[in-house]
Amino acid sequence: MTDNATRDIEELIGMMARLPGLGPRSARRAVLHLIKKRALLMMPLAEAMQQVAATARECLACGNIGTSDICDICSSEKRATGEICVVEDVADLWAMERGASFRGRYHVLGGTLSALDAIGPEELRIPKLLDRVRAEGVTEVILALNATVDGQTTAHYIAEQLEGTGVSVTSLAQGVPIGGELDYLDDGTITAALKARKRF
Amino acid sequence: MTDNATRDIEELIGMMARLPGLGPRSARRAVLHLIKKRALLMMPLAEAMQQVAATARECLACGNIGTSDICDICSSEKRATGEICVVEDVADLWAMERGASFRGRYHVLGGTLSALDAIGPEELRIPKLLDRVRAEGVTEVILALNATVDGQTTAHYIAEQLEGTGVSVTSLAQGVPIGGELDYLDDGTITAALKARKRF
Repeated sequence: MTDNATRDIEELIGMMARLPGLGPRSARRAVLHLIKKRALLMMPLAEAMQQVAATARECLACGNIGTSDICDICSSEKRATGEICVVEDVADLWAMERGASFRGRYHVLGGTLSALDAIGPEELRIPKLLDRVRAEGVTEVILALNATVDGQTTAHYIAEQLEGTGVSVTSLAQGVPIGGELDYLDDGTITAALKARKRF
Repeated sequence: MTDNATRDIEELIGMMARLPGLGPRSARRAVLHLIKKRALLMMPLAEAMQQVAATARECLACGNIGTSDICDICSSEKRATGEICVVEDVADLWAMERGASFRGRYHVLGGTLSALDAIGPEELRIPKLLDRVRAEGVTEVILALNATVDGQTTAHYIAEQLEGTGVSVTSLAQGVPIGGELDYLDDGTITAALKARKRF
């Protein structure tokens, strides 16, 4: 295990192991798989990665990822519905877009408030959100933050900041997921679903 | 989600999702992480991948991965001990090398015999192993195959093929792993450890 290739491979494994969801062992397996499929997978993957690294950038308005300073969603007139959906991360924006039922624009915070990690409003895109609400003729801010303690703390903070602006602040409904079985749900979800029950 | 960057990103996610251990969801997370660390991680990773893809190749003798036609281990005179350790995969060879107690050479089969997947001796590197045993003055073949049904079937097949060649055929000991707790071990391991018990 002393030649250059082995050093290169070790380095590659080390980098792959830094990806979320991969540890040293799965990084080794992934790299071996890549080496076995050098022409079919490894080369195209390296090229795709370089391409994305060279062109991807964050939207200056909402924080979404695209190729231009203003992303497709922000620059589309069709999506100027006056609704802004606030999400923690680009992954959440993608999840909302897969649902394909929201036709407004987004605002990606880039995380949640966290006293432990010293993340305050200035570290997130919260001031920018308040600017947009004032400037863009926004009528509704939909807080689509994760149903975690940090997510809900952040939602409360943003709702507070928007008080008195006349903007309607809403959040996603909580309840039983489609296809969900009561027996597998946690008590909090059942309580929330019961409280928010509606006429059948 | 219509511009080029998004298409490129979708493609990249699709490729990442083909790696073992990553599904569509973890591939998305990994790609978002890469995009956030474009300069620090994504570019170097793409370059490392291209480097390895361009230089890595399988050793013609043993199937290990290196930069030359004959790998470092096979070309090192120090490792011509007459012992060949037979493993299923390069990952197993690396695991043995991390142990750093085996000083002979290896032979990577590239899988196990499997009637279901129609993998016979010709699909693996078994004929090449028999050639090496005849040509290289081998005294011992250590079968370090996984303790699975397919691994053990393959081990039995190889042992049969080596009968009458005068080569000593051994396999790794089975028993309680170092640091292992009896209560967490399966019955088969405990039985094997009891059968192979030795004087304290």
